[in-house]
Amino acid sequence: MDYKQFIEEQISEIRDTVGREKAINALSGGVDSSVVTVLGHRALGDQLKTVLVDNALMREGEPEHVVKLFGKLGIKVSLIDAREEFLTALAHLTDPEQKRQAITDTFYAKVFARLVKESGAKFLLHGTILTDIEETVAGIKRQHNILAQIGIDTQKAYGYGVIEPLKSLRKDAVREVATALKLPRELSQRIPFPGPALAARIVGPVTKERLETVRAATTIVEEELSETGAFQYLAVLLSDLATGIRDNKRQFGEIVVIRCIDSVDARTATVKELGWDKLNRICERIVQIKGVNRCLYDLTPKPPATVEYV
Amino acid sequence: MDYKQFIEEQISEIRDTVGREKAINALSGGVDSSVVTVLGHRALGDQLKTVLVDNALMREGEPEHVVKLFGKLGIKVSLIDAREEFLTALAHLTDPEQKRQAITDTFYAKVFARLVKESGAKFLLHGTILTDIEETVAGIKRQHNILAQIGIDTQKAYGYGVIEPLKSLRKDAVREVATALKLPRELSQRIPFPGPALAARIVGPVTKERLETVRAATTIVEEELSETGAFQYLAVLLSDLATGIRDNKRQFGEIVVIRCIDSVDARTATVKELGWDKLNRICERIVQIKGVNRCLYDLTPKPPATVEYV
Repeated sequence: MDYKQFIEEQISEIRDTVGREKAINALSGGVDSSVVTVLGHRALGDQLKTVLVDNALMREGEPEHVVKLFGKLGIKVSLIDAREEFLTALAHLTDPEQKRQAITDTFYAKVFARLVKESGAKFLLHGTILTDIEETVAGIKRQHNILAQIGIDTQKAYGYGVIEPLKSLRKDAVREVATALKLPRELSQRIPFPGPALAARIVGPVTKERLETVRAATTIVEEELSETGAFQYLAVLLSDLATGIRDNKRQFGEIVVIRCIDSVDARTATVKELGWDKLNRICERIVQIKGVNRCLYDLTPKPPATVEYV
Repeated sequence: MDYKQFIEEQISEIRDTVGREKAINALSGGVDSSVVTVLGHRALGDQLKTVLVDNALMREGEPEHVVKLFGKLGIKVSLIDAREEFLTALAHLTDPEQKRQAITDTFYAKVFARLVKESGAKFLLHGTILTDIEETVAGIKRQHNILAQIGIDTQKAYGYGVIEPLKSLRKDAVREVATALKLPRELSQRIPFPGPALAARIVGPVTKERLETVRAATTIVEEELSETGAFQYLAVLLSDLATGIRDNKRQFGEIVVIRCIDSVDARTATVKELGWDKLNRICERIVQIKGVNRCLYDLTPKPPATVEYV
């Protein structure tokens, strides 16, 4: 595939669609939204406003770091603090579908709707990729960013049109486009991170405390596993507790699952066969997180498991 | 330690204590209760009635198999079907302490109390070992068979006196005694199995269906891991569910954890560093169990984890 041609085509299509209107897009720092941000700014310049919504669900220091990275690329990103709104929406929810829905609704119907209104944008640029569409349509996974494809008229529901420059690509092709756009490696090779972010890494209720636990585990996993070259690696906090021993007393502790997979396009995945030095070291660090006394490694390929738990 | 002398001392102490009364003991097939059964029959002959209570929580085919094994040793064991009583007592309980308590109460206050009454026994022979006492007293784990040590007067509470011939030994010494008693290897080297049996391998509610799931997983784990020579290996069913894919559709599936540890006396344990061939094969078989779509391997030593989850 000729990615340069693809880039030119998308830029001109974005320009044609938006015309003299304003557009807006939300950047998460993942490769999909990063590519859309760069394509959008090349196409629209100041007509495009890029926001990064801090939904309380991002990794340690991530919101500020991503804003800085794009600053270096000459792209201004507005950091929006919406942490309380998301935490309130998620309070007391345990069902995975309800959690995803609460995040979708809070993002599109509340926070983003407000930002669109304030910005006067008529178009939303969106980092949907082909796998998102396929999995949602097949009923495997409800991606938070799939709207039109499941019959939601975004113009009617949220007040804007949606442009999806990457909807014909899978993850590997998006990385090629990122490289062709000369995005820094940290962005083009960034491991996939789900739309619901760390909320997708928490089985059961999402609270500030539980987010802190899974955020600390995520930092450890990323430090330990980035060098493996794996497609994706993640830490999941379960809601079950297990018995353990602290200070010679029984303790019911939290359980953290480590998952590390190889994949080309996220449609199927195999488990990375890590060495025991690495597994032991990760476990040792994970059980130092407050309240955690178990660390498990997920042995399951996709299928029959998915990459995420929620 | 001279195990022959230990055996003679215990046999004579059991004889002295029981005198001309009748005694009863419950055999599970674990090494502790097996040794007590043999010691008791050497000391008391027909004065001792041995029962095996099928509490619905045992492994596949285990009750019948253990009865047969002891038959070959010339010891008659009565198989008592108490499955419904235990399942009823466990229904709707999720708290580990409440589950253990329900099993203890059903066993001692109901099923066993009835058997004691029917048998006219004045003494119960019990397979308590030192580690059980230490962990219960330290508050790490409430072993179901610890009564006197935490202030329960069994004579008053249940109507019989308790004799504990193994209470000065740890697991490794019990195995030596079993070997000295010429118990078959299958019994002397039997891996530890918790008092609450498969109920200790289920996080959350214990139902017939969930017992079937963890029983099937236990069969797989024991088939695959007995050759490793590990101290203990087990399968645990969590109550959390995770997303997966079956027949191209999203499925919330059950999660099974595999644990395989090395230990001398169960006070501390290290994780067995299994090879990836073995891990992959176990996972492949586990996710073929109906409703299961994740298989995890527990990386955590004891401490900070315990061997069991409940």
